Amino acid sequence: MRHDNRDHREKIYIYGKHALTEALTHTPHVVGKVFLSFEANQDKELRELLRRRGIVPAMLKTPREASNMVGEDTAHQGVIAIADPSALLRDFNEFLTELTSQSGPNENTAVVILDELTDPHNVGAIIRSAAAFGAAGVLIPPHNQAPITGSVVKASAGMAFRIPIVAIGNVNQAILKLKDVGFKAYALAMEGAKDVTKVKFDAPSVFVIGNEGRGIREKTLEHSDVILKIPMDPRCESLNASVSAAVVLYQWSAQHPQALKHE
Amino acid sequence: MRHDNRDHREKIYIYGKHALTEALTHTPHVVGKVFLSFEANQDKELRELLRRRGIVPAMLKTPREASNMVGEDTAHQGVIAIADPSALLRDFNEFLTELTSQSGPNENTAVVILDELTDPHNVGAIIRSAAAFGAAGVLIPPHNQAPITGSVVKASAGMAFRIPIVAIGNVNQAILKLKDVGFKAYALAMEGAKDVTKVKFDAPSVFVIGNEGRGIREKTLEHSDVILKIPMDPRCESLNASVSAAVVLYQWSAQHPQALKHE
Repeated sequence: MRHDNRDHREKIYIYGKHALTEALTHTPHVVGKVFLSFEANQDKELRELLRRRGIVPAMLKTPREASNMVGEDTAHQGVIAIADPSALLRDFNEFLTELTSQSGPNENTAVVILDELTDPHNVGAIIRSAAAFGAAGVLIPPHNQAPITGSVVKASAGMAFRIPIVAIGNVNQAILKLKDVGFKAYALAMEGAKDVTKVKFDAPSVFVIGNEGRGIREKTLEHSDVILKIPMDPRCESLNASVSAAVVLYQWSAQHPQALKHE
Repeated sequence: MRHDNRDHREKIYIYGKHALTEALTHTPHVVGKVFLSFEANQDKELRELLRRRGIVPAMLKTPREASNMVGEDTAHQGVIAIADPSALLRDFNEFLTELTSQSGPNENTAVVILDELTDPHNVGAIIRSAAAFGAAGVLIPPHNQAPITGSVVKASAGMAFRIPIVAIGNVNQAILKLKDVGFKAYALAMEGAKDVTKVKFDAPSVFVIGNEGRGIREKTLEHSDVILKIPMDPRCESLNASVSAAVVLYQWSAQHPQALKHE
């Protein structure tokens, strides 16, 4: 099945003040229509944020109007917005320009490339872990890859609004371009040569996470500087893709606590 | 919603030689009827294993007979069995007796307690990680906890047949009993006092993983010796429960490589 992320135009609901504030602050262009209850509309912070983005909220007149959109048991706090998750995707060249401008990528910079992951839960969970462990972005290829949908955003616990999600044309080309600007490429595979507990991440790092079934493709392994393995019981065949990604990002971030600090 | 695991009698299909061999070797009592194709029935190893368990396989006469059970696109290799996943649950006292007999639990022993996790994917993923990182068992309470179903077994990638899954009556009592035989209890919480990257796991360890929404209950935190936190970007609220569990188990197992070795 081939799937072009750019053809994807799904609408999702964002709800709650926290999630909408996140989206308006980091990715305002994904936010469409906004609905507020009378009470929520009294919130000065939220009103100021909407005003700055030029968004005029519609009023929620009854509780049923809200539950028709997001369901009965949803803690929406009178704050609901319609968003287009596919609009979260950023351009790779622009992302690269941003990364290399200012101080440039350094040893506290990491990005994640998803090599055609098909499970939206895994994609969302990896976005969530990448944000939590201080990665600079999650890069996704256009084909055979779960696109950024409502399920992905939900599994990311809203972190898809926080961390850059970048559309790449091709996994191998993206790796080469990142290596050109000083990145070291780490692929994660069962047959890895280097134990992740023993690696010193001393350059900007790109971590390639393989497809749930087939892992990472041969050509991509060739483009990688280091093939990492996570030590595990030899009788187990593998870890879940999002668990592997989290373990490597955790190990990286334990060496780079500065990546977790923000001004 | 209250749910008693012991009332659960769901039937699932196990398929493929590998999965059935796992189940027959480690948890033969969960295996019910077994179906083999003509070719699979020539497999001497599998026939011997079935003979030893006193199971007489039924013959799969047509490919359709198999796909009626497990679907068209399933790589069953002519090997299908019916299993009762709830029968995977072991008795806590027996488990404890086994743990404390022989050499007893030592610093290379770890178990995981799930404090009312509700998502079957998380439960399955944690079982998978626990097996991969060399834990001795996964303990689950009877109420408000996702029971061991087909989804859990699937998300565990078959590891639910490998690692003991133990029914406990009550999380706090289980912690106290484990502490009685020398375990140190580690709870995992955002507000944790101790950074997981800096802990030395120098005793048998029990790791308590909290519910996806509310985390770990107050009383359970009080029973724990150490409350661990995973360092993360302060703007992120939390990690996925199965990711947190995997990170802690990974960190533990990096200190106890002996737990990954088997005779």
